[in-house]
Amino acid sequence: MPKQTAITPTREENYPEWYQQVVKAADLAENAPVRGCMVIKPWGYRIWENIQRVLDGKIKELGHQNAYFPLFIPLSYFEREAQHVSGFAKECAVVTHHRLEVNEEGKLVPAGPLEEPLIVRPTSEMIIGEMFSKWITSYRDLPLLINQWANVVRWEMRTRLFLRTTEFLWQEGHTVHATREEALEHARTMLQVYKEFARDYLAIPFITGEKTESERFPGADTTFTIEAMMQDCKALQGGTSHFLGQNFSKAANIRFRTQDGDEEYGWMTSWGITTRMIGALVMIHSDDDGLILPPKIASAHAVIIPVIHKEEVKPQVLEYCHSLAKELREQGYEIIVDEREMRGGEKNWGWVKKGIPLRIEVGPRDIAENKAVLMRRDRPFKEKEFLPRDELIANFSKVLDEMQAGLLQRAIDFREKHSKEIDTKEDFYAYFTPKNKEKPEIHGGFAYTHWCGDPAVEEQIKKELSVTIRCIPDHIEQEAGTCPFTGRPSPGRVIFAKSY
Amino acid sequence: MPKQTAITPTREENYPEWYQQVVKAADLAENAPVRGCMVIKPWGYRIWENIQRVLDGKIKELGHQNAYFPLFIPLSYFEREAQHVSGFAKECAVVTHHRLEVNEEGKLVPAGPLEEPLIVRPTSEMIIGEMFSKWITSYRDLPLLINQWANVVRWEMRTRLFLRTTEFLWQEGHTVHATREEALEHARTMLQVYKEFARDYLAIPFITGEKTESERFPGADTTFTIEAMMQDCKALQGGTSHFLGQNFSKAANIRFRTQDGDEEYGWMTSWGITTRMIGALVMIHSDDDGLILPPKIASAHAVIIPVIHKEEVKPQVLEYCHSLAKELREQGYEIIVDEREMRGGEKNWGWVKKGIPLRIEVGPRDIAENKAVLMRRDRPFKEKEFLPRDELIANFSKVLDEMQAGLLQRAIDFREKHSKEIDTKEDFYAYFTPKNKEKPEIHGGFAYTHWCGDPAVEEQIKKELSVTIRCIPDHIEQEAGTCPFTGRPSPGRVIFAKSY
Repeated sequence: MPKQTAITPTREENYPEWYQQVVKAADLAENAPVRGCMVIKPWGYRIWENIQRVLDGKIKELGHQNAYFPLFIPLSYFEREAQHVSGFAKECAVVTHHRLEVNEEGKLVPAGPLEEPLIVRPTSEMIIGEMFSKWITSYRDLPLLINQWANVVRWEMRTRLFLRTTEFLWQEGHTVHATREEALEHARTMLQVYKEFARDYLAIPFITGEKTESERFPGADTTFTIEAMMQDCKALQGGTSHFLGQNFSKAANIRFRTQDGDEEYGWMTSWGITTRMIGALVMIHSDDDGLILPPKIASAHAVIIPVIHKEEVKPQVLEYCHSLAKELREQGYEIIVDEREMRGGEKNWGWVKKGIPLRIEVGPRDIAENKAVLMRRDRPFKEKEFLPRDELIANFSKVLDEMQAGLLQRAIDFREKHSKEIDTKEDFYAYFTPKNKEKPEIHGGFAYTHWCGDPAVEEQIKKELSVTIRCIPDHIEQEAGTCPFTGRPSPGRVIFAKSY
Repeated sequence: MPKQTAITPTREENYPEWYQQVVKAADLAENAPVRGCMVIKPWGYRIWENIQRVLDGKIKELGHQNAYFPLFIPLSYFEREAQHVSGFAKECAVVTHHRLEVNEEGKLVPAGPLEEPLIVRPTSEMIIGEMFSKWITSYRDLPLLINQWANVVRWEMRTRLFLRTTEFLWQEGHTVHATREEALEHARTMLQVYKEFARDYLAIPFITGEKTESERFPGADTTFTIEAMMQDCKALQGGTSHFLGQNFSKAANIRFRTQDGDEEYGWMTSWGITTRMIGALVMIHSDDDGLILPPKIASAHAVIIPVIHKEEVKPQVLEYCHSLAKELREQGYEIIVDEREMRGGEKNWGWVKKGIPLRIEVGPRDIAENKAVLMRRDRPFKEKEFLPRDELIANFSKVLDEMQAGLLQRAIDFREKHSKEIDTKEDFYAYFTPKNKEKPEIHGGFAYTHWCGDPAVEEQIKKELSVTIRCIPDHIEQEAGTCPFTGRPSPGRVIFAKSY
C-alpha cells in the first residue's frame, strides 16, 4: 500500500505541481485576478515581515538608511539606456493615461493621455541615480548608503507564485562610494549579509560566487549571486549584489569633488532580495505533507490544540492552554491557541500542511498529570512526546534550535549528495540527461566543471541541455585545469546546473 | 530689528511657503522628477517607519493580520462601480501596454497593448473584496480582519509634499463582520486607535467625529474622521474609518452562511492613515526655525556634537561622546554623533532645522568637569544647560517626556484659543472672513455651530467661504438648538472650518 501523503502529487511524482499544492495547502498565497500577480495571504506575508524585520536590522547596522522613491519612471529615462542596448525590449507596465471617463456609449475608458508615458519601476537604478546626482557634490557626501523596500513590476510571461510574478516585493540597496575598491568590497559585503541571513534564519545554504559575463546584470561590472539547490536538484538564485563600477554614475551624471579638488564619477553598487525567497524556502524544506517552516522565520512557532471531548472540561482545558501560551509568549514566541470547533485530526493536519514547527495538544488527562503532548514538524506525523509542562517550557528554545539546525544540515547534505566534480564532456552530458524520459526534470544536480571562459560554450550547453553556469564559486580552492568542452586551459571550476 | 529666523518666510509671513521650506530645510522629502510624486528622504522616511512600527503593533494587537494585494486592478472592476456613480471620473494611473520597444525611427515606444487596461490602485476595496468573496463562506470565517501597508496612486492636480501627492504610502484596513453592530463598533474602535496613537506618539490632538453625508466616502454608510487644527487655523483630516454596511459586500458578493443556516452579506469596514500624517506633524509643531519632532516618533532623539578647537583633544572628546551615546542607546534611544568637520554654529542650526529633540555639546572643558551641554528644541536656540553627565543620563527620558507632553499641550491650547461657539450667521461670516486682505488665509479657526442638517446649507457656505463641516464631533455634549443659517431646529453643533 502506498504511503498516504497530505500533498498530491508528491515531490517525486511531479515536483512543480507539488510546489503549487504546498503553497496552496499552507495558505501562503494565491493567484490574483490580475494576470501574473499574486495575493500574499497572512500566513505567507508573515514570513515576509519576518524577513524584512531581520534583514532590515542587518542592513541598518551597516549604516544604510531607508528611503522611498517614486513608483513611476518617465519613459525618457529608459531611452538613455535603450541607446546602449541593441534589440532593446523591456517587459514592463506602461502608464499612458491619468483618468477614467464614461464615454458616450456609457463605457468606462482611459482618458487624459499623458504627454510622456510612465513606466512602473522594474528596478529603481534610474530614478535613484537621478536623485543621487543632486544629493552628491563632495567626497564628504560619500559613501551614500540607501535602501528601499518596495514593489516592482516586470511583465513576466510565465509566472509561478513567489518564484516569478509580475509584481513582487523586494528591497533594493543603492550605494555610491569614492573609490572602486570600496564599492567592490561593499558589493561583496552585502552578498555575505544575504548568505549569512539565509543560513541563520531561512536555513538555506546558499553558495556565493560571481556570475559569468553572459549572466551579468546589464550595466554591472560584476554581478555576485547566491545560489541554492532545491529538492529537484535545480539551482535557485536567491539574490544578487552588483558592482556597477561607474556605468550608472556616468549615465546619471553622479559626480563628486575629491579631497584633492578633482571631479570624479561615483563608484556604485546595487543589491536586492525579493519575495522569491519565500518560494525558495518552500521548495527547499517542505515534504510530501506540506510546508516546513524554519523556526527562526516561521509565521508562528507553535499551535496549542485543546482536546475537548466533553463540554464540561472545556473551561479547564482552555485555561491551561492559554496559560501555557502566555508563558511561551513571554519568552518571545508566536503561539496560536486553536479553539476552532473542528475534528482533531483535521485540525492537526491543517497545521502540518501550514508548516508550523511545533504542535502541542492538551487534554484533561494531560492536565491531570501537568503534562502536554508535543509533536514536531520534522518528525513523523504520529510521533508524540508526552512532556511535563515545565520541561516543555524549559526545552522549548532548544527544540526549535535543533529543528532549525536540522533543516539546514539536511539541505546541505542534499546538495552535497547531488554535487559532483565532472571532468569529461561525456560525463557532463550524461549527468544532465534525464534517466527517465517521463520525468525530464530529474537529473544530476550541480556539476563542478572546468570552463575555458568562452561564452560560446555556455551558449551551446544552454541550448542543448538548458544548463547554465550558476556562478564561479567562492568556497572552493581554485586550481587551473582543462576545459572538457574545448580542451583549452581553464582557470578553475564553475558550477553548472539547471535553474529556476 | 526683526528677529532672525532659520526659515524664510515665517509662518506669519506666508504659511504655505513656510511649510515647504521647513520640509526642505529638514531634508524630509523632495519633489521627484515625476509630476506630483515625492522622494521621501531618510530623515522623513524614518518618521514613517516609526509610525508603521507603532501603529502596526496596535493593529495586530486587535487581531488584524497583514497581507498584500496586487497593485493593479482590472478596469472592469471600476465599471461595476461606475454604474452607480453619475458623472463618474476617476483621476488615476491607467496601464495600457506591457512592453517598451524601439520603433523603426529608433524611438522607444509603448508596445504590447493590453486587452483590458489596468488601474494602479487608488484604494483596494474592489480587489480585496473580490478575494474576500472567495475566502468567506461561513460565519466561522468571521470576523475577517485584514490590513495592508502599500503605495497607492491618485492623479492629483495640485500636489504638496506629504499633504497631497500622486503616489503616497498608507495602511488600509479591511474587515468583514457577521453583524451590523459589530462592524459599526469596529469602525469606531479603529478611529479611537488612530486618535490615541496620534495623541500619544505624534502629539497631535485630533478631534473625532462623523462626517456629514456630503463629505462621506462613496460607498460608506458612515465615515468617521480625525481632524486637527494646524497653525494657520485650518483643519487637517488625518485619517478616516468607514462603516461600509453591506454596500461593498453586495457589489463583490461577499456572503456567509449564518449560524442558523441562512445566507447573509457581510458587514464591512475600511480605515486608513497615510504619509499625509507626516505633513500634519510638520505643520502643527514646527516653528520659524524649522521642524520640531515629538520625541516619541522622532527620527532620532539626540545628536551629540563634539566641540574640537584643537586637533590634540579630538581623541579624548570623541571617546567621551561615543561613550555617552552608547549609554543612551542602551536605554533604547536613537543617538547620532555628528563628527562632520564643519563650523559649530552651522552644525547646530542644521540640527535645529531638522527638529531633533535634543542637542548635546561636549568640549574639553565639559569633559574636565564630567559634564555636557544640553540644548532643547522646545527652548530658545541660545538656552543651554550645563549638566553633570550622570544627571543628563538619569533625566534623559524625563526631559523627552516633558517635551512630548509640552508639544501636545501647546497644540491643544492653540486649538482651544481658535475655537468658538458661534450662534449667528453674521458672526459666522465675520469669523471666516479674513481681517487682512493680503493674508486671506488668516481667519477664525473652528466654529462650533448648529446646523439643521440640510446639505444645501453646506454647499452655500462652501461656495461663499470655502468652509466645510469637518465633523459632527464626539467630544461635546450635544444639545438641540437652532440653525443660524435657516432658523430651523438643529440636533447639535458641528465643526465648521477651512481645511487642507
